[in-house]
Amino acid sequence: MSGIAGVYGNSQEARDYLYYMLYALQHRGQQSAGMAVFNNGLIDYHKDRGLVNDVFDNEILKRLNGNIAIGHVRMAAKGEGFDYPYIQPIVAGIRMGALGVVHDGFISNAKDIKKELQAEGYMFQSTLDTEVIATLLAKNTKDSFEDALLKTIDTIKGSYAMIIIANDTMYAVRDYYGIKPLSIGKLGDRWVVASETCAFDSIGAEFVRDIEPGEVVKIDKNGIDVVVKGDPSRRKLGVFEMVYIARPDSYIDGKSIYSARRNAGRILAKEHPADADIVVGAPDSGTSFAIGYAEESGLNYTEGIIKNRYVGRSFIEPSQDMRELAVKIKLNPLKEYIKGKRLVLVDDSIVRGTTMKRTITMLKEAGASEVHVRIGSPEVKYSSNLMMDTPTREELIAAVHTKDEIKDIIGADSLEFISLDGLFEAMGGRDFSEGCFTGIFPEGVL
Amino acid sequence: MSGIAGVYGNSQEARDYLYYMLYALQHRGQQSAGMAVFNNGLIDYHKDRGLVNDVFDNEILKRLNGNIAIGHVRMAAKGEGFDYPYIQPIVAGIRMGALGVVHDGFISNAKDIKKELQAEGYMFQSTLDTEVIATLLAKNTKDSFEDALLKTIDTIKGSYAMIIIANDTMYAVRDYYGIKPLSIGKLGDRWVVASETCAFDSIGAEFVRDIEPGEVVKIDKNGIDVVVKGDPSRRKLGVFEMVYIARPDSYIDGKSIYSARRNAGRILAKEHPADADIVVGAPDSGTSFAIGYAEESGLNYTEGIIKNRYVGRSFIEPSQDMRELAVKIKLNPLKEYIKGKRLVLVDDSIVRGTTMKRTITMLKEAGASEVHVRIGSPEVKYSSNLMMDTPTREELIAAVHTKDEIKDIIGADSLEFISLDGLFEAMGGRDFSEGCFTGIFPEGVL
Amino acid sequence: MSGIAGVYGNSQEARDYLYYMLYALQHRGQQSAGMAVFNNGLIDYHKDRGLVNDVFDNEILKRLNGNIAIGHVRMAAKGEGFDYPYIQPIVAGIRMGALGVVHDGFISNAKDIKKELQAEGYMFQSTLDTEVIATLLAKNTKDSFEDALLKTIDTIKGSYAMIIIANDTMYAVRDYYGIKPLSIGKLGDRWVVASETCAFDSIGAEFVRDIEPGEVVKIDKNGIDVVVKGDPSRRKLGVFEMVYIARPDSYIDGKSIYSARRNAGRILAKEHPADADIVVGAPDSGTSFAIGYAEESGLNYTEGIIKNRYVGRSFIEPSQDMRELAVKIKLNPLKEYIKGKRLVLVDDSIVRGTTMKRTITMLKEAGASEVHVRIGSPEVKYSSNLMMDTPTREELIAAVHTKDEIKDIIGADSLEFISLDGLFEAMGGRDFSEGCFTGIFPEGVL
Amino acid sequence: MSGIAGVYGNSQEARDYLYYMLYALQHRGQQSAGMAVFNNGLIDYHKDRGLVNDVFDNEILKRLNGNIAIGHVRMAAKGEGFDYPYIQPIVAGIRMGALGVVHDGFISNAKDIKKELQAEGYMFQSTLDTEVIATLLAKNTKDSFEDALLKTIDTIKGSYAMIIIANDTMYAVRDYYGIKPLSIGKLGDRWVVASETCAFDSIGAEFVRDIEPGEVVKIDKNGIDVVVKGDPSRRKLGVFEMVYIARPDSYIDGKSIYSARRNAGRILAKEHPADADIVVGAPDSGTSFAIGYAEESGLNYTEGIIKNRYVGRSFIEPSQDMRELAVKIKLNPLKEYIKGKRLVLVDDSIVRGTTMKRTITMLKEAGASEVHVRIGSPEVKYSSNLMMDTPTREELIAAVHTKDEIKDIIGADSLEFISLDGLFEAMGGRDFSEGCFTGIFPEGVL
Repeated sequence: MSGIAGVYGNSQEARDYLYYMLYALQHRGQQSAGMAVFNNGLIDYHKDRGLVNDVFDNEILKRLNGNIAIGHVRMAAKGEGFDYPYIQPIVAGIRMGALGVVHDGFISNAKDIKKELQAEGYMFQSTLDTEVIATLLAKNTKDSFEDALLKTIDTIKGSYAMIIIANDTMYAVRDYYGIKPLSIGKLGDRWVVASETCAFDSIGAEFVRDIEPGEVVKIDKNGIDVVVKGDPSRRKLGVFEMVYIARPDSYIDGKSIYSARRNAGRILAKEHPADADIVVGAPDSGTSFAIGYAEESGLNYTEGIIKNRYVGRSFIEPSQDMRELAVKIKLNPLKEYIKGKRLVLVDDSIVRGTTMKRTITMLKEAGASEVHVRIGSPEVKYSSNLMMDTPTREELIAAVHTKDEIKDIIGADSLEFISLDGLFEAMGGRDFSEGCFTGIFPEGVL
Repeated sequence: MSGIAGVYGNSQEARDYLYYMLYALQHRGQQSAGMAVFNNGLIDYHKDRGLVNDVFDNEILKRLNGNIAIGHVRMAAKGEGFDYPYIQPIVAGIRMGALGVVHDGFISNAKDIKKELQAEGYMFQSTLDTEVIATLLAKNTKDSFEDALLKTIDTIKGSYAMIIIANDTMYAVRDYYGIKPLSIGKLGDRWVVASETCAFDSIGAEFVRDIEPGEVVKIDKNGIDVVVKGDPSRRKLGVFEMVYIARPDSYIDGKSIYSARRNAGRILAKEHPADADIVVGAPDSGTSFAIGYAEESGLNYTEGIIKNRYVGRSFIEPSQDMRELAVKIKLNPLKEYIKGKRLVLVDDSIVRGTTMKRTITMLKEAGASEVHVRIGSPEVKYSSNLMMDTPTREELIAAVHTKDEIKDIIGADSLEFISLDGLFEAMGGRDFSEGCFTGIFPEGVL
Repeated sequence: MSGIAGVYGNSQEARDYLYYMLYALQHRGQQSAGMAVFNNGLIDYHKDRGLVNDVFDNEILKRLNGNIAIGHVRMAAKGEGFDYPYIQPIVAGIRMGALGVVHDGFISNAKDIKKELQAEGYMFQSTLDTEVIATLLAKNTKDSFEDALLKTIDTIKGSYAMIIIANDTMYAVRDYYGIKPLSIGKLGDRWVVASETCAFDSIGAEFVRDIEPGEVVKIDKNGIDVVVKGDPSRRKLGVFEMVYIARPDSYIDGKSIYSARRNAGRILAKEHPADADIVVGAPDSGTSFAIGYAEESGLNYTEGIIKNRYVGRSFIEPSQDMRELAVKIKLNPLKEYIKGKRLVLVDDSIVRGTTMKRTITMLKEAGASEVHVRIGSPEVKYSSNLMMDTPTREELIAAVHTKDEIKDIIGADSLEFISLDGLFEAMGGRDFSEGCFTGIFPEGVL
Repeated sequence: MSGIAGVYGNSQEARDYLYYMLYALQHRGQQSAGMAVFNNGLIDYHKDRGLVNDVFDNEILKRLNGNIAIGHVRMAAKGEGFDYPYIQPIVAGIRMGALGVVHDGFISNAKDIKKELQAEGYMFQSTLDTEVIATLLAKNTKDSFEDALLKTIDTIKGSYAMIIIANDTMYAVRDYYGIKPLSIGKLGDRWVVASETCAFDSIGAEFVRDIEPGEVVKIDKNGIDVVVKGDPSRRKLGVFEMVYIARPDSYIDGKSIYSARRNAGRILAKEHPADADIVVGAPDSGTSFAIGYAEESGLNYTEGIIKNRYVGRSFIEPSQDMRELAVKIKLNPLKEYIKGKRLVLVDDSIVRGTTMKRTITMLKEAGASEVHVRIGSPEVKYSSNLMMDTPTREELIAAVHTKDEIKDIIGADSLEFISLDGLFEAMGGRDFSEGCFTGIFPEGVL
């Protein structure tokens, strides 16, 4: 899970805009951040562990002078390190000059490509898919970088959105099905590219359009140019972008994230009404769904669980002993509202089921007489890294248990999931990659 | 604005419980944190700038061994430094032995006392009211520390909740009117004290009771003892604790913070209905009020403005130039929901009016046809540091402008405040210190 | 053991000069550094653990704007903490205004004074003697700060050099016997004060004169003024300043440190010749003595032991296990020069004897056939903190063992100390405090 | 300029020994440090800017578990960055498995190789020669890593000592002429390799032998094996190792560094006596030479210039304004010894002449009546990175000026250099690479 952004301008302060765009994409990854800037034939860069706020300061930004800048925020996948070599961008000197690459996604045949490249004599200094892409670009570059890029795209499978600096030119690429999002915006004479449109809002840039599935866009001093035309009819955006990953104020492929979630809540209420007193959202992922559910059902919406805003993902957990003392440090129920009540608890999805189980236990201890769980996406039965880093199939509770079994495991009084059709209706279309629910992934991506 | 907590136990790991309690009180102050621990005749302590998470690590906690621990989190008042000397607790060696003090509040006669003490030959190494209190305790201690404490309480005016370690004894004190909150809890054979009950929830402690106005409680190896009886009839809790400061899942003086806010929203809707399409809360302070307003009015509640969770109070702002680039880095409206709509925008209070003005501008730019502002507390016309650090009277928009003028300044289509009676009704009582609205402060506190 | 310095100028950059003076005094203390600056009625300051280089950066220095600045570097005494409260300067607001104090030395009646002051109602936030001094100054100040200063000097016993900012005036004070050094210099129209003259050289200032025993000097806009005349006939400089503490390029009370040490080496050679092949100094303390010894004896001087310059006092030692691996990480003998040779090993003093024992073992293992130890100061038989933090009497090897026993314990083939008369001759006078050798301390200092 | 070390053992704590070896080699590079450890098929590593002491702590060392460890300390060459990618070791996954490389030296055809490799499709993520070596190793590895290593050695020219981890095997390689030093030692059943023997002393390891020019040594579970025999008759150790780089307590190719320097001082005195009063060494580089000069000439040796030990290479220089205040912050002359005296000032070499000029100015200002400069190596007339990073030819004062001109430029009363024959005599052989003096470099290295 990553966020990427790029700026192509005619003046040297590209990194200032990029800095705020990365800030707006911070929800897509909090473990590391990086930025590469092209200036006068060379690419300078800075990357490190931590939030955007931690990684960059005024002195570093001042140094990163240049008219083209690309950047990245990242949540490491399971098993991956997040030491320096595992942080994007990858910057390298290749035949044609300076290369910088950031990418969001999962190259499904990366391991095979890597093995082949190693057999040919290449080496890898990290486990990043990005380094595999950069190595292919280096290997494939003969006379034309653009040919190398097209050849590389032919080689790699999976989901990806990427932004590349190749000397004084910036490329933006979206995978064949558009599983990963990528949009183009404009601010004065500056072109900007980002995973989500909220990054455009953050700097006052105007949204121009989404990059289409399979499209390759080139931005240089002559403006913007389509190198490979994309095909909107192939669109298969990863459904979890709509359900969980993206910020509610973003639009992807013309669709509002917030609307999709609130609509899903409404449809869920129609499909699976509950005989209950109040509707509660699991903070923060379930809130929009819960408001939609309440609206449709006519039940009262209540912030039933208060979240400690300071126990973020950066929470450095103390020793095991201390952890056990911390009963309700992250979440605390509003007992007064819950006591004796029949609750509808709404969340976006159930993956392992462990968090949901803990939440229900907490609500029951707080006096809830019944907890009816309603989920805004279908049962996650298939593991996939195409959209988001998911656990192995064995760890997916819906892959190994029936709905009834899950209900008992998590301690709910009833449990219902939105139908896939219902979710499609909520999102306003069927052009999504929904393999996690059905096991059917777009042809050729795995 | 501060949060304080204390633990008295029979084993050495008091700081582990205190650590989590401070975490739960982090919303009361993010600039500094500190902890003092009594062990074997001495008080060791650690304090520094930053969040609880930044200030303490496992090694430091391990060092802070002892059965009595007090701690503090803090937001510096205007004009105050937040370098090391300005961080609580204050720890000192005095006649009777080791002294540690944390306090939340505003000693209104601190400057006068300080001047007198300096004239008598005392020195001050900080501008903290806490150091004034500690100096008085030192000065007043002859044979009995308890006498000194009572004498000190007679001397100081204003609002305060404080927790003191005096050798092997812990004291908890609440000011004459109970303007500042302080509660007692219990976990096994451990006594715990905290500004808010959410700190008890965080460690699974049971709420015992609020400390009463003017009460002095002593906790030692013989258990808990009331040194000075408090008087519930004097209760004048600072109204901003209910409206803004406290966490919604806390209870103060038997009253639920969340309920008070949601009720205020409901009453506001009754007092000041609006001819509008949707109800939006100013994030995060206005959310509970807005939900109440929507509930009562029958209008749809919508999360109309999305907040970037990573631009917290710790946001280190870059240079002026860069700041201007950041258009919607903190808040971004949901255009789709707002466009062409008549909005009710609900917030807890208007102090300077600048934030509200910015928010309305943003909503109008996003296409809102009308913005009707409804405020969950009356007009703040009087400055006071008793409850919360407020600006000078000149800076209070309601002190220098009529409601109509404010409406025009902030660009609202209509503007209404809840009545003071309405707010009292929402909070379930009139026993609050509401001088910010009326200019009438409890007798003798200023 | 501390170094102190002060600058009084007519422009605002006093801290720039002070910064370099503290750098030049770094050998007097490496655990903490601090600086206080008077500007426009207030004293701002910064202090922290670490070397001058670590504690200050350009941003901090820029902030410390003002025409009067005092500073401090420090080596904590045994048992003392070196957390923030234990770092000088002490800065406080007292009756007459702003007060800042730095001091080098040991107030022998500090504990008694503290007890009395606590009984009177004063508190102490550290264990620093400096806080005791500041508290006395605060207490004694009625109409005149100068009267308070004189009264305070009457109260405190022991060794001290101190520099004080009292509003817009700077005072420099040396104890009754001048046990601790303090000199005055001038740079243009700026007055500078420092523990050692090497601090003047560092900024190109001219040495003016030593402050005399018991002298109180006042520097303000009218220039320099003697408040209390000192008496050179009382001079009793701590002998360890000459032997160990001060930098060789400094002059104290008109005497060259380097000459004293080299002379001591020469006299030691006359008093205690050795039948040996080469002369080796214990690095770095014994080098100057060894060169003198070689010169007088006609034996060849050799750098027989190489010191790793990067294992400084800041060496963070790893775990016990690892420490045992580190055989010669700090010191490594030049085997080739030592093998089969009879060595004279010269050092400045023997305190506990442990280092000397380790060095001799190392030299013998490297093949030295004989090691004759010659020491440039007499046997340290009495503990004292007046000059330098020494161990308890039981830990002083010469207090509990005869010279012959010491020789056997450390494994030397012979062991001789310079006579006290010889040392006096080397230093060019008898006006030193030499109680560590004789047990006779200046009257009234203990 | 770098220091390298390696440990091959049978237990997992190889890094503990390596840690101390790197400490002992710290003088060879203070800008960065790194360590790679082989464990169970994988190489873990840690590297960062700073001293060994800064880069590693107990937690990191604990993590670097394994029986093979290689490490590096580094001084960046001019123009090179010292950000993370420029820090050794280089660790990579290649066809045969895990690869780790550290190297000290200068690959003279690195740029050409890099260009060729880029043309073939390889990319480079740093400007380190080490990455070029690693890329060649990756490219050349077909069935046998050893074949690839030999092929790589055939390709690269210049000076190098390197240590490689190739899965469970460690290799140590020295360039064809042995320009860069590398030795083997033993500690119990552990094999250790290091740039200098002082690293063996630090852990109590026994010196076994120098690796010979062109030799390739392999260490694995079967012990030590010579893959390519070296040829001692080709020995051309970089002469600056003897004159400046190596620690005095090290032995390289059987020669004592300290002896070479002291001998050079003696021969210099014979070749170029001076009519003077005392001999002074330029600290610290000239000290050993000066002691030798004094010994031979019969003149008195004096520590004429005192160095501030705390102004190390880590000295973070403040702003230009402040720098000008710092007159004698690094070096301070002993005026008393220098005033009116005729000095012989001895140093190891003159490169740009700027430091020497500053030193002479300082001595003259301190009252020296004459300063006769004597240099322990011939005139440096040719630039070369083979031994040490030297400036361009134009910056070498002896390349563009006659001896007489230099004398005038630096302000000396006389100036003499040791003859090349004299230096060879001092070092006990002619088998050195001395191109800096003669312009004649070993055939084929450039």
